[in-house]
This record gives sequence, C-alpha cells and structure tokens, in this order.
Amino acid sequence: MTLQQTVPEPGALTIGTDGAIGGGTGGYDKRLGELRGVYIDDGAFEAAVAQQGEDGLAYRVEEHRNVEGPGALIVGTSTLLPGRVGEEFALTRGHLHAKSDRAELYYCLSGRGVMLLETVSGQSRAIPMSPGEAVHVPGHWVHRSVNVGEEPFVSLFCYPADAGQDYALIAEAGGMAQLVVTDGDGGWTTRPNPRHVGYRSATS
Amino acid sequence: MTLQQTVPEPGALTIGTDGAIGGGTGGYDKRLGELRGVYIDDGAFEAAVAQQGEDGLAYRVEEHRNVEGPGALIVGTSTLLPGRVGEEFALTRGHLHAKSDRAELYYCLSGRGVMLLETVSGQSRAIPMSPGEAVHVPGHWVHRSVNVGEEPFVSLFCYPADAGQDYALIAEAGGMAQLVVTDGDGGWTTRPNPRHVGYRSATS
Repeated sequence: MTLQQTVPEPGALTIGTDGAIGGGTGGYDKRLGELRGVYIDDGAFEAAVAQQGEDGLAYRVEEHRNVEGPGALIVGTSTLLPGRVGEEFALTRGHLHAKSDRAELYYCLSGRGVMLLETVSGQSRAIPMSPGEAVHVPGHWVHRSVNVGEEPFVSLFCYPADAGQDYALIAEAGGMAQLVVTDGDGGWTTRPNPRHVGYRSATS
Repeated sequence: MTLQQTVPEPGALTIGTDGAIGGGTGGYDKRLGELRGVYIDDGAFEAAVAQQGEDGLAYRVEEHRNVEGPGALIVGTSTLLPGRVGEEFALTRGHLHAKSDRAELYYCLSGRGVMLLETVSGQSRAIPMSPGEAVHVPGHWVHRSVNVGEEPFVSLFCYPADAGQDYALIAEAGGMAQLVVTDGDGGWTTRPNPRHVGYRSATS
C-alpha cells in the first residue's frame, strides 16, 4: 500500500504584454472610487470621479495561485491604466507585505512606470521601469507602482503566497513619503508628500 | 537615538531576451563535460564532447539575490543552448528543491522549450513554452528545462531563496522518468527512460 502524495497541478500560463493571463485562477479590479484619499489633490480626484465614475477602472490584477504556505508563490500581472490626478501620476495603493520580510519581483511587460519604494525608517527610491526592466523588491520595503506613460503599465509579479499585504500602513502615514508628479516638461519627478506623518512599525 | 534597520537595496535590473541581466549579483556556466551521465546515449554524448570540448557551454544562469531567509527570492535567467545528444534535446540537469515544498516561476523570454515535471510518486507533465508562456511549478515537482528549438531557450525564473536544489535525486533515480526526444518529424515527444528506477523520497 502506498500513500499517494497530493500535489497541485503545475500552472501552464500564457501571459500577454497586455496583462491578460490564460490559465490563471483569479484576480480583481480596482475602481477609481476605491482610491479616494490616496491622491493628494482631493479636488482633482473628485473631478476625475465625476468624469470617469466611481466604477471607472484604475487597475487590474490577474494571478495564478496553487497552494498556501511558506514555499508557495503567487504569480500574476498588474495592469495600471495611465492618467494623472492633479500633478500625480496614476498609482496603485501600494503596500508593505504583512509578513514584512517577504520580497517580490516585478518585471515590466509593457508601458512605462516607476516603482516607488520606501522603508518605514525613511529611505526612498524611485526606479523607472520599461519593458525588459525589473525591480527585485526586498522585504521591508513599502512599494507602489506608478504609471508615468501614456499606455497601460503592465508588470509580471511573483511573491511568496504567505506574504499578505498591509495597506493600512500607508493610509495611517498620510500616504507614502514621496509623490511621483509631473515635472511640467513631459517627464516625472518626485517630491515630498506634505501629508506624510511617518510610518508606524511593520506588524510582523 | 534611533536604530536604523538595515535592509537590502532594491535590485534595479535589465533583463534581456538573450538572458543577459544588468544589475545582477552572480550566476554560473554549466559546461558540457559536467553533464556526463545525464543524457541516455553515452556514445552520442562523447561524440558531442569530442566536437565541442569538455568546456563547451551548455547553459548559463544569471541571477540577482538580496538576502537569504524564508521571505527572500532569487530572480534570474536560464539560457539553454540548442542541440541534441542522440535523440534527446538539450536539457538542464533538473532538480527538486531541497526544501521540496518550494515553488518556482519560469517565464519564457525567447526560444522554444519544454518544462518537464515529475513527482516522486510517478506523475509526469511536459509543458511547451514559447515567449510569453510561463510555468508555475508548485512544490514537490522535479523539474528540468529542455530546448526543443533552434535558438537558445531563455526563461526568467523566480523562487524562494531558501529553496536549495537536490540534484542527486535525479542521478540516483537513473535520470528523470521521461525523456524529451525528437519525434523524427521536426517536433518533440516524450518516451520512458529505460534507466529510470524510481525516485527516492524527498529529503525534506
């Protein structure tokens, strides 16, 4: 008598440069109305909502999961639509992993973006990403994608399945310490977020 | 007085479809002579060595590592040159992760390959990979890349930094259970490896 070990089926995926995943297991859409309070310019945000609606698509995540556990991964795509809210470029909410030592890979499939990274102790980095460029985000870095181009900014991501996301950390800090804004000349730059009050410690 | 937490710098990487990584931290070359005993046709293997030399390049791994630990990842590329040894297509040694529950992502950047996957209990899968296709390898699957095309088969990989590789498992089993061989008509197929004696259990 043998015990047959049950293992998940390998995921055979097609991953489009438009972010569409064939063979994925799920995902979610983030609507503009869910990003209220995330952008610094409340008036510009409400004007965008008036134009695009609360349900206007802001970004989409598609993914493939097998199992949970310390050895498992989550693989997926993030597709962030272009645009600006006031001077700020379109962004994802951003997060620190709930298990803060969990790392993440982002590999740009299309578009032109910036990975904004910050530590709770005050370090900040803004790394430009174009197709073929990647950011290996170590643990302990809060991170957010920003679309500084004219097309959707699409990245392939891969991170430990037990990482989780602490989104509240950024909200409680009044937003990330840096903003990614227009430089007034067709490009982007960063500048301090006047609402940022510093990060609390990570929860784990 | 504040304690400044030391965190690794984010990796800003350029990842070519030829497998070249800008900003990486290391890697290795696997030479033909190191693959003695891996292919089924010993005569064809020695003929290949006579032609290409013990030091002929078989495949190259380039990677970026930050830190060790359960939350860290290793990101890299695998570039497997094309060719055949007898009826078998060019392959990597293959491995089960030493921590056998560790998963891995492979995303094809160029070329045309097959991911051959097997469990120690006898399941087998052969998943074709072309640019834009990916395989999410769950834990507990022995896996190997095979180049069934005419060009280098290049994939981006991402896996937990504490995974390790158990290469001996395959050698002790007389090779993987399946071979990826020419179908005699310009394509590939699989057939049982007559030397395969079954896998022992994973070490962890």
